[in-house]
Amino acid sequence: MIDFDKAGGLVPAVAQDADSGEVLMLAWMNREAYEETLRTRRACYFSRSRNKLWRKGEESGHIQEVKDVLIDCDADTILLKVRQVGDAACHEGYKSCFFRRVEPEGLQVVGQRVFDPKQVYKK
Amino acid sequence: MIDFDKAGGLVPAVAQDADSGEVLMLAWMNREAYEETLRTRRACYFSRSRNKLWRKGEESGHIQEVKDVLIDCDADTILLKVRQVGDAACHEGYKSCFFRRVEPEGLQVVGQRVFDPKQVYKK
Repeated sequence: MIDFDKAGGLVPAVAQDADSGEVLMLAWMNREAYEETLRTRRACYFSRSRNKLWRKGEESGHIQEVKDVLIDCDADTILLKVRQVGDAACHEGYKSCFFRRVEPEGLQVVGQRVFDPKQVYKK
Repeated sequence: MIDFDKAGGLVPAVAQDADSGEVLMLAWMNREAYEETLRTRRACYFSRSRNKLWRKGEESGHIQEVKDVLIDCDADTILLKVRQVGDAACHEGYKSCFFRRVEPEGLQVVGQRVFDPKQVYKK
């Protein structure tokens, strides 16, 4: 259905809040992550930096329950409609990873901070 | 601001309808496309298949007026909030490129077709 090989094994996956429509994040999926996501209905990505499956929320508890999976016309991008447990998708504690707006004078934080990362990721 | 070099020169850019919140498409930007988009406030992408700048709507007239530009926590993904001229982002005539839902029995078309591609792209 999705041509993972064409894309070098990884395709982008956009997670959108199923209720509000807010775009929460973009991550990557290989075939294994995609199939696990479909099977479990919990978002599973592939971490390019750690080079392994990344079950979103495995450390923070902030999992994403998958309500809908859509693919685009070229079948090389995935859109997940999710319910974000913990109300924040971003590891920096914001609701959405897209919490900064590009302005002529630089970046402006426009996102809503939901938690303090130090309290959630106890490293 | 965005580390294009880290990402091999291209970063994903998600276009979202500024009013409805619908995710319209995902395309790619190199530095030149990004800077043109900021300067002109019209979405300009980089076509991987044609290997050149792609001024969205240059053939169909269905340009995207850029209302807002956001970047994610890792500064390697762009989110554009746009007004889609012609009401359809997809070259297949759908409002959104994500017009198919992944169901256990296969793909189901759930998107709204706005135009007939044969009438718009006279090839």
